[in-house]
Amino acid sequence: MRTQVGIVGAGPAGLLLSHLLARRGIDSVVLEARSREYIERRVRAGVLEHPTVELLREVGLGERMDREGMPHEGVSLRFDSEEHRIDFADLTGRGIVVYGQQEVVKDLVAARLADGGDVRFEVSGVRLDGLTSDPVIHFDGADGTRGELRCDAVVGADGFHGVSRAAVPHTTYDRQYPFAWLGILAQAAPVREELVYANHPDGFALYSMRSPEVTRLYLQVPPDTDADDWSDARIWDELHRRLGTEINEGPLLEKGVTGMRSFVAEPMRHGRLFLAGDAAHIVPPTGAKGMNLAIADVRVLADALYRLVTAGDGSGVDAYSDTCLRRVWRAEHFSWWMTSMLHTDPAADAFDRRLQLAQLRQTVRSRAAATTLAENYVGLPHGSV
Amino acid sequence: MRTQVGIVGAGPAGLLLSHLLARRGIDSVVLEARSREYIERRVRAGVLEHPTVELLREVGLGERMDREGMPHEGVSLRFDSEEHRIDFADLTGRGIVVYGQQEVVKDLVAARLADGGDVRFEVSGVRLDGLTSDPVIHFDGADGTRGELRCDAVVGADGFHGVSRAAVPHTTYDRQYPFAWLGILAQAAPVREELVYANHPDGFALYSMRSPEVTRLYLQVPPDTDADDWSDARIWDELHRRLGTEINEGPLLEKGVTGMRSFVAEPMRHGRLFLAGDAAHIVPPTGAKGMNLAIADVRVLADALYRLVTAGDGSGVDAYSDTCLRRVWRAEHFSWWMTSMLHTDPAADAFDRRLQLAQLRQTVRSRAAATTLAENYVGLPHGSV
Repeated sequence: MRTQVGIVGAGPAGLLLSHLLARRGIDSVVLEARSREYIERRVRAGVLEHPTVELLREVGLGERMDREGMPHEGVSLRFDSEEHRIDFADLTGRGIVVYGQQEVVKDLVAARLADGGDVRFEVSGVRLDGLTSDPVIHFDGADGTRGELRCDAVVGADGFHGVSRAAVPHTTYDRQYPFAWLGILAQAAPVREELVYANHPDGFALYSMRSPEVTRLYLQVPPDTDADDWSDARIWDELHRRLGTEINEGPLLEKGVTGMRSFVAEPMRHGRLFLAGDAAHIVPPTGAKGMNLAIADVRVLADALYRLVTAGDGSGVDAYSDTCLRRVWRAEHFSWWMTSMLHTDPAADAFDRRLQLAQLRQTVRSRAAATTLAENYVGLPHGSV
Repeated sequence: MRTQVGIVGAGPAGLLLSHLLARRGIDSVVLEARSREYIERRVRAGVLEHPTVELLREVGLGERMDREGMPHEGVSLRFDSEEHRIDFADLTGRGIVVYGQQEVVKDLVAARLADGGDVRFEVSGVRLDGLTSDPVIHFDGADGTRGELRCDAVVGADGFHGVSRAAVPHTTYDRQYPFAWLGILAQAAPVREELVYANHPDGFALYSMRSPEVTRLYLQVPPDTDADDWSDARIWDELHRRLGTEINEGPLLEKGVTGMRSFVAEPMRHGRLFLAGDAAHIVPPTGAKGMNLAIADVRVLADALYRLVTAGDGSGVDAYSDTCLRRVWRAEHFSWWMTSMLHTDPAADAFDRRLQLAQLRQTVRSRAAATTLAENYVGLPHGSV
């Protein structure tokens, strides 16, 4: 079996790349370890930055997002018993759209299948070969038959735990945070219209929403937390206390603990293998940048691969890693900065705590500082970083 | 002996306070441990932020500063072999003036003595008493005779190593940095017109100047450095390499090592004793805020003491500590931030180093981020923080 671009992983990065390539007449095959049902239900990120929203609209994927997504023009920061709004619209002229990653994935799968795209689910045993000459992806199909996919280029969009990164000789940059997020989805109408980020001496809390009926809430917890140790009553108590704003309670639809990590692998390319999204870089969720970075990667990659595959022009793929890493490091810094500013570090001393409050005060009182947060949050224009 | 306000310390804080009080008809006596010659020669800070410049002009102290000081409309940041200018004038409409602290002190001493002010040098054995009722300052005069100064209020402007702070029950917030500055004054005409802050893998370096004939240069060194271990040749070599910009060499007029520390004592008042300047707070020199904070303190204090002493109105002195501490913490954060962004931390890992470069790039590439640096550097308007 042969295709032009073999893509490992049907997350937002892999699927969108396949879509972008198809629009330019490039064939691809997407191999995914999980089932279609699984990836369409997996709850992950929920904030689409402005350049992501524009790109999805531009490539014909904006219809349901514009109907069901919730446009937000700001967020609020709470600390020291005060609340301050960061007005994205006023500060940057742009905003974000709250629309779950699984909804983006659903739209992408539907678009690929409607276009006759080749997306294979429940594939296992992926092994990459010939990456510096003639790439081959070996795999076992859902029915157990062995497959061999020959291609001009391979894209590893198989996430942080995928197999692709190991095939790229790389240097890693890593930070583990001394806390995690306990996240819940609750069947409760949001009372707030925008996200609320709360810095509290007992730990960070985040108020967000997924739909007019579903609230998404997070609590900072120790990294080794077992979600089962947190009863619903304890979760609501902590949320009320740390957020200090009205919350509608409701039955929990989901409860889970997410680790907080920063990670970058450099470079993002080896021969004809290109890493994209979480396979190459992870951010803590505080800045809502994970999926947006993945999308920025494949936008660059689609263009680079088009030039490589159709005209033998390697300039785009040669620049791919450096081009993406500029935006990656901007997002890594922003995500680390938001995380540091908002969480309670168990190792912080009294001086650190005062610095954190001084940073928060500057962020809400200086228009320049608020703009720096806002322009990162709504997303710097693609190609500008 | 009796006065209205007894001031311990004839640095910029104590002398300016005495001057501001005199302009409002309040008597004060300044007691200083060192000689007049010593304080007029002691090389310290050299950057006057905009609100400092405006205040000095407003109270009749701007004449020589405006003639001999060097107005700067920006600074440059160097990192990763690039140089970028932060244009204060464009970003904030304001600038700074480079004018040595010892010059400010000379102007202040001359003004106090011309006005018949009482400034006593080489005073020792200062002891504070009756601070919550009827304050008395006990001291030994330059001629060895014991003195006793009764006053309505005492101001501790005797620096970080002075005796006053111990008389205020306080909480301290402290940070010691794992590096120091080796500073030189060189008899060499500056080739650069503005300050250059250089981030280099081997350590920070700063290019500055004190006059059209004298260059002031600094190198990051380990905290336990003995200046004598650094020959002139070694210093110039390191400066050339780290700064990567043209430098005129010249004979060294002075060479010394300065520790880097952040420190805040809260509150800044106990009864009728008020701390001002370094007696209450220290910043690392990277943000050039030390003397400017001292001047902001005494501006608030002069007004508060005027109301207390003339009308028995305690509202100003009651608010003094909180009012000053807001600006103090803004400057503490800014100074820590500049220090962290520019120095090489021996404990930093590869991820920290990439974050630092990402922060530097954001600072020079985002107008909002550059404005945040600029507005702090040129100084937020007095009373606005």
